[in-house]
Amino acid sequence: MNRITLSPRLRTTPFHESTVAAGATDISIYNKMVLPLSFGDLEAEYDRLINGVAIWDVAVERQVQISGPDAHEAAQYFTSRDISNIVEGQGKYVAMCDHDGNILNDPVLMKLSGNRYWFSIADNDMILWCKGIAAEKGWDVEVTEPDVSPLAIQGPKAEDLAADLFGEHVREIKLFRFIETDLDGIPLVLCRSGWSKQGGFELFLQDGSRGNELWDKVVAAGEKYDIGPGAPNHIERVESGLLSYGGDHTPDSNPFEVGMGRYVDTDTDVDYIGKAALQKVVADGGPRRLFVGLNVEGELTEAWPLPERTPVFQNGEQVGTLAAIVHSHRLGRTIGLAQVDRAVVEANETVEVQTPDGNKSATIQELPFL
Amino acid sequence: MNRITLSPRLRTTPFHESTVAAGATDISIYNKMVLPLSFGDLEAEYDRLINGVAIWDVAVERQVQISGPDAHEAAQYFTSRDISNIVEGQGKYVAMCDHDGNILNDPVLMKLSGNRYWFSIADNDMILWCKGIAAEKGWDVEVTEPDVSPLAIQGPKAEDLAADLFGEHVREIKLFRFIETDLDGIPLVLCRSGWSKQGGFELFLQDGSRGNELWDKVVAAGEKYDIGPGAPNHIERVESGLLSYGGDHTPDSNPFEVGMGRYVDTDTDVDYIGKAALQKVVADGGPRRLFVGLNVEGELTEAWPLPERTPVFQNGEQVGTLAAIVHSHRLGRTIGLAQVDRAVVEANETVEVQTPDGNKSATIQELPFL
Repeated sequence: MNRITLSPRLRTTPFHESTVAAGATDISIYNKMVLPLSFGDLEAEYDRLINGVAIWDVAVERQVQISGPDAHEAAQYFTSRDISNIVEGQGKYVAMCDHDGNILNDPVLMKLSGNRYWFSIADNDMILWCKGIAAEKGWDVEVTEPDVSPLAIQGPKAEDLAADLFGEHVREIKLFRFIETDLDGIPLVLCRSGWSKQGGFELFLQDGSRGNELWDKVVAAGEKYDIGPGAPNHIERVESGLLSYGGDHTPDSNPFEVGMGRYVDTDTDVDYIGKAALQKVVADGGPRRLFVGLNVEGELTEAWPLPERTPVFQNGEQVGTLAAIVHSHRLGRTIGLAQVDRAVVEANETVEVQTPDGNKSATIQELPFL
Repeated sequence: MNRITLSPRLRTTPFHESTVAAGATDISIYNKMVLPLSFGDLEAEYDRLINGVAIWDVAVERQVQISGPDAHEAAQYFTSRDISNIVEGQGKYVAMCDHDGNILNDPVLMKLSGNRYWFSIADNDMILWCKGIAAEKGWDVEVTEPDVSPLAIQGPKAEDLAADLFGEHVREIKLFRFIETDLDGIPLVLCRSGWSKQGGFELFLQDGSRGNELWDKVVAAGEKYDIGPGAPNHIERVESGLLSYGGDHTPDSNPFEVGMGRYVDTDTDVDYIGKAALQKVVADGGPRRLFVGLNVEGELTEAWPLPERTPVFQNGEQVGTLAAIVHSHRLGRTIGLAQVDRAVVEANETVEVQTPDGNKSATIQELPFL
């Protein structure tokens, strides 16, 4: 049941040959594209991310480009965060919501220029949302998916590698800031970003025909740091409390309920989709649920993601949903991510979670764990 | 590389346990859900579809429900076919296009009542398109994904099975017509439809908690017809010329370029998205490319889908893209589906296709093959 058939409906990435050659064993499908998940040695992949540097094919993180004279107005309208002060070369982690304030995506919004923005999106077809609304608004913008495919280098040695590749000046790039540059003529955007808390960069390749060439150059330069292949890491992301959009929450969640409250501006003059609904959440006393960490009793025997969310109970009543549970190598204990009713969180009460190893007791803590 | 990791971001269907128990070996991901593709015996699965009856878990075919007073106006606006005369209990195969006339999806649109419609969609998040535009239009509608999961019975014996299950009156149901009914209290919509040309029905389960119960009842009743598990069949769909949206065409295709010209109404008073662009295609003399069948020389050694579209050449120049190539059991030869430049099609010229077995000569023919 776990064998997948690739077909033209599911795209491979510009780095596909390289990831096959590097021994990719397990994949997922994300934005209808192949996302390598493991290269057969989960321990080594984790270690590389925490202590060295790993190369990740994250081309599935597609860009929705908004370009044209009305690009800023459109980008703001799609974003539940005031982006009035965003500058060229800056990215911001944002929530995109529907008109009811439910979160649709959690991209990094990047300002390429005054009239060109990228939403670097999680797993759904936000291009449909943006394109349809832009056309109905009559804005003078084009909404497209450009030929842009991120390749990440992540881990504490990623900065040294980036400096070797692009020059010492890249050490000055701040989080979510980026520059347009190239590597031996391969055009790319270099951004300090990535779906880990271990530091690093994403190289947004701007020529899909040169993916394997870029991979090879990065690997060659990374040899001195023992670079190796990896992927968005299930254990590290739980330790770091990073949201997996679409997996970690129920579909009717507002940004406050997935840990993104700090990125929502309700007290602002700018106009965006869902603003009234989110203002009402605040006026009504805040969200009903919170996105929290769980410290779970006992050992975990299963290393892979939960196949689906499972209930969180208290006294036999469901009070939340568990999205992920892992053995944290660094903490030496079992931890999880969950949406839990706010009253239970605020009372700091013990809950019970349904795990592959049976029901277990758990305590609640704020994210991140590390 | 062909091992997939399931996780909460990818949903299983209400029939999941049943398909696992029935021995599903190969899957795809479709609308971020698990689509079983094979049960380990492709020959038997094909034979069952052509000569008997097969049960398919096609719950990935999600419904986008438009409900409310403005539902008809909204459904029409999303559809490049005049649906003025659609009646309750009727479905119509339609194209949904963007404002530039490019096809976004090829659903069956079903009219449940005067103010409730379902788009039974192919693989992308059309709910985002519909929801965003409906909100901006200010229509009095709700756009939702209801708890509805199709289970198909397909093949020449499917009608007998449906009559055994629901009564003789179901033999009178015409293509794409449907009734709301139940099976021993399991609520469903029974529609004469399905992604094959072998006849049959789709049972749109309306209670996701009862999927395995429904599966078991259908299998028990189907025993006398030697029912067995199957899936949308790669060989039969090529023989029948059925479109695989997203796989068979380039993203910039209008409906005329994917074989859906007969379902597009440009000479109509109704208002729909992309109408002006499609009228211009007609005014300019018609589409640039056509969706055609190819008769390919020689034998094919590979039974699985092409992993990606490959070029169609003529005299060394690319004149199209090949989407699928199979050995047709019934025709006893190699056939394919392709988008080819219209001038080449109309001149009825020989082309060359790139296949897993090398380049091969091919002749063009109208679809379907059978």
